[in-house]
Amino acid sequence: MTDDAASDAAATPTDSPTPQDAIDAASADRRTGRDPRVYDHTAGDVQDGVPFIGAGPGDPGLLTVTGKELVEDADLVVHAGSLVNSELLEAYCADAETVSSVGKDLEALIPLMRDAHEAGRTVVRLHSGDPAIYGAALEQMDALEQAGVPAYVVPGVTSAFAASATLRTQLTLNGTANHVAFTRPQGRTLDPEDDHISEFVEMGDVTTCIYLGTHAIPDVMDRLLEDGHDPDTPVTVVYHASWPDEDVIDGTVETIGDLVEDAGYRASALVVIGEAGAGAGYERSYLYGDWANRNGSEGEADD
Amino acid sequence: MTDDAASDAAATPTDSPTPQDAIDAASADRRTGRDPRVYDHTAGDVQDGVPFIGAGPGDPGLLTVTGKELVEDADLVVHAGSLVNSELLEAYCADAETVSSVGKDLEALIPLMRDAHEAGRTVVRLHSGDPAIYGAALEQMDALEQAGVPAYVVPGVTSAFAASATLRTQLTLNGTANHVAFTRPQGRTLDPEDDHISEFVEMGDVTTCIYLGTHAIPDVMDRLLEDGHDPDTPVTVVYHASWPDEDVIDGTVETIGDLVEDAGYRASALVVIGEAGAGAGYERSYLYGDWANRNGSEGEADD
Repeated sequence: MTDDAASDAAATPTDSPTPQDAIDAASADRRTGRDPRVYDHTAGDVQDGVPFIGAGPGDPGLLTVTGKELVEDADLVVHAGSLVNSELLEAYCADAETVSSVGKDLEALIPLMRDAHEAGRTVVRLHSGDPAIYGAALEQMDALEQAGVPAYVVPGVTSAFAASATLRTQLTLNGTANHVAFTRPQGRTLDPEDDHISEFVEMGDVTTCIYLGTHAIPDVMDRLLEDGHDPDTPVTVVYHASWPDEDVIDGTVETIGDLVEDAGYRASALVVIGEAGAGAGYERSYLYGDWANRNGSEGEADD
Repeated sequence: MTDDAASDAAATPTDSPTPQDAIDAASADRRTGRDPRVYDHTAGDVQDGVPFIGAGPGDPGLLTVTGKELVEDADLVVHAGSLVNSELLEAYCADAETVSSVGKDLEALIPLMRDAHEAGRTVVRLHSGDPAIYGAALEQMDALEQAGVPAYVVPGVTSAFAASATLRTQLTLNGTANHVAFTRPQGRTLDPEDDHISEFVEMGDVTTCIYLGTHAIPDVMDRLLEDGHDPDTPVTVVYHASWPDEDVIDGTVETIGDLVEDAGYRASALVVIGEAGAGAGYERSYLYGDWANRNGSEGEADD
């Protein structure tokens, strides 16, 4: 908005819209209707432009088949630094240029990807886990599209699912955990009134999965104790699920903070609050047996 | 435990423990400590025994690399019937024996898989989405292990992530949706007091994802209206995310029931309640810009 048509700033494009302008414009557009590509493509389709790929939890084998093919074909892979397992990059794009996005803001990342795309190079953006969960992918996609480069999402496996696989359990378990919450606590980017961890735990049958820096675990547990929750509520921390240095620490709301501190982990981990993390105490599902025509996985009706 | 310490009934296996016995025994075991395999393996490892593989949302390309390799190597693929896209079976295991688990209870499924395994055949169990979410995998794994066949989980992409990719959005969006709930409504397998949908919606910044038969949508919406929720709350239904017949229906708590009925879908769909389904109104993340050392996807700490 540095030109002189200041009387109608909102309707006057500048030569160099900022990423924030792009986000605002895309957000406004979406209020008036869906992008046609929502209907023209299905999830998993390879589309024009830059794919924002969920790299999965870490193990190269937990990338999707389509994600792997796109990464293998890429000339430039912009990845989430230490959040993406370097073994995956070595396995699938050892010959590509790889750039970590750590330390780069939108104003640096968008021209980097746009220029490479416009130069005819094949560009992919690799996020850890699935981009839908705490991914910050959409703002990059909006800014890229504003810069003339199409973008789309290729989903991936979130680390919570890898953690559940490691624990040999399910996040939902009949009679124990009927629901799952993916959440984060109050902090620099979340106001205390938007912290719902205590409410999720209070429900009693929710598996609460927190994407969290290990250093923040004691504060979260202290708040749960202050709110009157049972100190013996099971809490399991899965560090680097599916990575070579994966670890599992079992404790309770009362004990897990010290246990994790003793273990010395400094990076992020997945914190699972609830009985399902222990895989204990569940009842047989009615999906088998009585429910002869209902079967075997997510998606079936519950009526 | 085949020694003569028969006075200890708990240590005396019967010739034919029922699947329910197996579940109870495994559940009790887990209360006393983790299975050593939790520490001996990481998620994504190929282990001994029968893998319970998340087939992903439907598109064959959204199966994981490891899942694909296991399915390709299998002699017997027990799959979740119409919940798994037949294109995936054709792509990866056209030469294997495939058996739908629909209509088979544990008492039929377990001997089927055990006998094949004991005969030296390579057996895989294919669930839709990820087995951790409404998967009923654990009871089969427990029963298989009681029958002497090891089992483990290979995680997958849940249909909610495919739906989010289709919608070109994220399930979490700064300033719009700070949390995600995977949930199901009261019904044949869930008591009304364990139905938390209204509570999740009440929180205002939760993207509520319901795995639901389309016929049940009107009842869920009626209850939300009775509970006083805004009739204009956005609701998006994604039918068969990533399948060739994928469809998207946008509405509100007030309108979505009729819209889905008009569309005529009979099977399950993913119902997304909240602003994030529309990808509108979000704020730029602080992951880029101010936060030079934090970057790019799930897992990073929040303060």
